[in-house]
Amino acid sequence: MTARPTRGRRPGNPEVTRRAILEAARATFTRAGYEKATIRAIAARAKVDPALVHHHFGTKEDLFVAAHELPFSPTGVRDILEGGQGTLGERVARLYLTAAFREGGPFESLVRAAMTNPTARSMLRGFLEHGVLDTLTPYLGTPDARLRIMLAGSHLMGLFMARRVLGVDALREADLEHLVKVVGPTIDRYLTGELAPAG
Amino acid sequence: MTARPTRGRRPGNPEVTRRAILEAARATFTRAGYEKATIRAIAARAKVDPALVHHHFGTKEDLFVAAHELPFSPTGVRDILEGGQGTLGERVARLYLTAAFREGGPFESLVRAAMTNPTARSMLRGFLEHGVLDTLTPYLGTPDARLRIMLAGSHLMGLFMARRVLGVDALREADLEHLVKVVGPTIDRYLTGELAPAG
Repeated sequence: MTARPTRGRRPGNPEVTRRAILEAARATFTRAGYEKATIRAIAARAKVDPALVHHHFGTKEDLFVAAHELPFSPTGVRDILEGGQGTLGERVARLYLTAAFREGGPFESLVRAAMTNPTARSMLRGFLEHGVLDTLTPYLGTPDARLRIMLAGSHLMGLFMARRVLGVDALREADLEHLVKVVGPTIDRYLTGELAPAG
Repeated sequence: MTARPTRGRRPGNPEVTRRAILEAARATFTRAGYEKATIRAIAARAKVDPALVHHHFGTKEDLFVAAHELPFSPTGVRDILEGGQGTLGERVARLYLTAAFREGGPFESLVRAAMTNPTARSMLRGFLEHGVLDTLTPYLGTPDARLRIMLAGSHLMGLFMARRVLGVDALREADLEHLVKVVGPTIDRYLTGELAPAG
C-alpha cells in the first residue's frame, strides 16, 4: 500500500503508522466515549497529523468501524441506500452478515464487552446513536427513520448473537446466502415498507 | 397461595419451599448444564420430593423458565401456537417483549452472563436447543422448523438487546404495543409464511 507524503506525518512504514492510529483510536474512543472522541485527539495520541488520519480512514465513523472491525460502516450502508431500492434488504443483510459471521475479531469482543462493561456499552451505544443513526436517518427521510433503522439493525444483531455468540445449531448450519434471501424482505419492510402507525 | 400436602415434602412455609427449589434449580442447571440436570437432582438438592417440584413448577423447561424468570416459556408459546394462526406473530411478540422489557431480573443477568461466561452460555444454549426447539418443532411440523423458530427468536432477542441492554433511544421510547404490531407480521412470516428455499 502507498501513502502520500503528508504534512507532519512521522516517517517510517505506513502499515506501522496505520496500526498506531488504530490503537490510538481504540484507546481514545474507550476513554472519551464515541461522541467526545475527536480525530485531533486520536492523531495527537498517535503522534501524527490529523490529515493523515483522514487520509487513511476517512470520517470519525469510518475510523471507529476500522478500529473495531465492525461488520457495518455507515458509509457502506449509505452507499447501499443510495444504490436504489430493488433488493435493498438483501444487500444490507449480506453486507452485515458476511462481516458479522466472520470468526473472532474485535467486533465480537466489543459486543461481548458491551453486555457486561458499562464503558464499552456506552461507547457502542454512542456509535449507534450518533455514528449510525445520525448518518443514515436523512437517507430514509421519514419521521420514524431512527426506529426503522433500529428494527433492522437489532434484527441483524440478534442473528449475530444467536449464531456466533450462542452458537445455536439451526443458525450455525444455515447457508449465509439463504439467510440473506430469507431476512432481506424483513429488512426491506422495516426500512422502506408500510408499518403499523404509532399510537 | 396453598400447596397440597405431598409425600416427602419438608414442613414449613410453601413460599420458602418454592424459593429453595428455585435456588436448587439455578445451582443444578449451572453445574450440570440444561440437558443433564434432572428434576430428581434438583429435588434432592432442595431436600424435597420430586413430586413437589412437578406440583409447583411443571416440567423441566418450565422450571428453568421460572428459575431464571425468562421472558418466554415453551409451554406459553405452545399454547399460543395451538391457539390458531390469525395474529400468531403479534401474540408471540407480545408474550416475549412484555416480559423481556421488564426492568432487571435474572433474565437480563443470564443473557449478559451468557455473552462472556462459557458455563452460562452453554446452559442458555442447551435450553434453547432442547427446552425451546425440541418442544416447539413438532407444532410447526416443517423440516425447517428449527431455523424458523430461531429466526423469530433471534429477532426478538435482538430487540431485547438493543432496548434493554444497549438502551438505544429509538427503541426505548417505542410503545410496546406499537412494536408488537410492527414486529408481528415478521414473526408470522418466519413461523408460518413462505420463505426463500434453501440452497
